[in-house]
Amino acid sequence: MAGGTAPPLIGRLVICGVGLIGGSFALGLRCAGAVGRIVGIGRRREPLERARELGVIDEIASDWAEALAGADLVLLAAPVGQMDAIMAAMAPHLGAETVVTDVGSTKRDVIDAVHRHLGRNLPQVVPAHPIAGAEKSGVDAAFADLYVKRKVVLTPLAESRADAVETVRTAWQACGATVVDMTPQEHDGVFAAVSHLPHLLAFGLVDDLARRDNAQLLFSHAASGFRDFTRIAGSHPEMWRDICVANRVALLAELDAYLGELAGLRSMLAAGDGDALEAVFERARRARNAWAEGLPVQTAE
Amino acid sequence: MAGGTAPPLIGRLVICGVGLIGGSFALGLRCAGAVGRIVGIGRRREPLERARELGVIDEIASDWAEALAGADLVLLAAPVGQMDAIMAAMAPHLGAETVVTDVGSTKRDVIDAVHRHLGRNLPQVVPAHPIAGAEKSGVDAAFADLYVKRKVVLTPLAESRADAVETVRTAWQACGATVVDMTPQEHDGVFAAVSHLPHLLAFGLVDDLARRDNAQLLFSHAASGFRDFTRIAGSHPEMWRDICVANRVALLAELDAYLGELAGLRSMLAAGDGDALEAVFERARRARNAWAEGLPVQTAE
Repeated sequence: MAGGTAPPLIGRLVICGVGLIGGSFALGLRCAGAVGRIVGIGRRREPLERARELGVIDEIASDWAEALAGADLVLLAAPVGQMDAIMAAMAPHLGAETVVTDVGSTKRDVIDAVHRHLGRNLPQVVPAHPIAGAEKSGVDAAFADLYVKRKVVLTPLAESRADAVETVRTAWQACGATVVDMTPQEHDGVFAAVSHLPHLLAFGLVDDLARRDNAQLLFSHAASGFRDFTRIAGSHPEMWRDICVANRVALLAELDAYLGELAGLRSMLAAGDGDALEAVFERARRARNAWAEGLPVQTAE
Repeated sequence: MAGGTAPPLIGRLVICGVGLIGGSFALGLRCAGAVGRIVGIGRRREPLERARELGVIDEIASDWAEALAGADLVLLAAPVGQMDAIMAAMAPHLGAETVVTDVGSTKRDVIDAVHRHLGRNLPQVVPAHPIAGAEKSGVDAAFADLYVKRKVVLTPLAESRADAVETVRTAWQACGATVVDMTPQEHDGVFAAVSHLPHLLAFGLVDDLARRDNAQLLFSHAASGFRDFTRIAGSHPEMWRDICVANRVALLAELDAYLGELAGLRSMLAAGDGDALEAVFERARRARNAWAEGLPVQTAE
C-alpha cells in the first residue's frame, strides 16, 4: 500500500476483565504496535476507569453490543467461574469476523461453555492459557513485559479456523511469549500435575496444621523451607476452588498417583529403610536441579 | 577482679565439624568476645585447614585427647548419622568440666546416642537445635550473624546440670539467637510437622513426576509456584535420609494426619463440593498470611 502504514495486527481489541492478565496483554500488544484501539468491558466500572486512566485501554464499553461492533479479537480474562455467564451475554452480539480467545487455567470446562453458548461460532474460537502471573493482581500490577519468554498454551478446537488460530498465536508472540499447542485433555492433565496438585497439597498442609490446638507453637517454629513450600497456600481461594472443581477429573487422577507415591514413602519410613528413602530423595533432587538449571529432567535410574 | 579483664564466657571451645553451622557459631561467639581459643576437629583435614585459614578456628586438633584437654564447651556440628561414632570416640577423653552440646535436627536419636556413649556424663550434656541454615554449606559460607534473631531449641536432659544448660543458653544468646526450651518429644513432633513432612512431600511430588514417561513435558510447563513448592526437594538426600529415619515415629504420625487431610480433600473434589474446598483454602490462606506477617495464626472458624 504505497505511502500508507501497514494496519496493525488487531484493529479493535476487546478485553473482558482488565486486571493483571488482561491488562498486560493489552500493554504488550500496544508496545509491539500490534493493536489499534483497545476496548474494556467488565462487571465493575471502577477497575475499567482505572485501566483507562493508566492508558491500558482506550475506551469502556457499557454493553456487549457496543464492545463487539467491529471487534477483531476478544480476550476473555475473567475468572473461570464467570465464563459461562460471559459467553451467554456476548453470544447474541458476536459477529462472524471476531476471533474469541480466553486465559482460563483449565480448558475442558471453558470449551464446554463454548459449546453451550457459542456453538454457532466454533470456527472463530481459540481457547488459550498464558502461563504467567505475579504476586499482585489488578490492572495497577499490569505491565507490558509480563509475557516475555513465558509460555502460552493454545488448545484450538477441531473446528477452529486456521486464520483464527494464527491471529491468537501471533498476538501472543507479539507480547513476547512462546506459544505451544496442546489438546485440552493434555493441557488439563499437565497442569493438574505441575500446578493444581501442588496448590491443593500446600493448602492442605497449612489447613492440617492450622486446625491443631498447638497451631501457634507449630507455626512459630516454621522456617524458610516451610515458607517456600506453602507460598502458594496464600493464593486466591475462589480462583482455586473454580480451578479444582473445573479440572477435578484430571486432578483426582494426579492426587491418586501422589497418594500412591506417599504410600510407598510411608512403607519405607515404617521399615526404617534409609537406602530406599535416599534413592527417592536423590532421584527427586537430580530431577529438580536439572529442571531448575534448564536441563533435561533425568528420568533414568 | 581489680585491674583485670573479665574472662570470656568460654575459654576453650571445641567444634566438631566446622561447616556452615559450626563455623558460624564460632564466628558469632568470637564477634561477641565470648570465646578464648577455638579448636576444630573433624573427619577430614582439608576443611579444618580452610577454617583455620579463614580465622574461624585457631587450631586443629588431631585427636579427641588433644581437643578436649581443658575444653569448656564442645559443639557437635556433624551430620546426625555420625553422632554415634563421634560420641564413642570422644567419651574416653571427656572430663567432667566440659559441657557438650550439638546441633542435630532430631533430638530423641541424639539423646539415645548420648545414653549409649556418654552415660556417665549426662549432667554435662545439653542437646540443642539451631533453626537456621543457608543455601550454601561449608565453612566458606559461615558468617557471624547467621543466628541473629533465629531460634535455637534446647532439649536439656533430666540429668543436665543447671550451669551446663546456662552455658549453652548464654553461648547461643551471645550469637544473637532466641533460645527456647522443649522436651525432645515436643521438639521432634513440632519439626516433623513444619519441616520434615514438607521435605518428604516435596521429594515425593518431584519423584512422582520425574518417573513418568512424559516427565520432560510436565516439567517444561512447571512455573514459579512449582519452583517454590519443590525448592526443598533440592536438599541433601543423605542428610534428609538420616533425619527421616531418626524421626520416623513422629514423621509417620504427621504423614498419617496429612493423609487424613488429603482424604477429606479427595472427597470434596470427587463430590465437586466447591464450597467445602473454598472453606479449606480460605482457612489455609488466612493462617498462612497471618504467619507470614508475624501475626497469631487464626485457628477459629
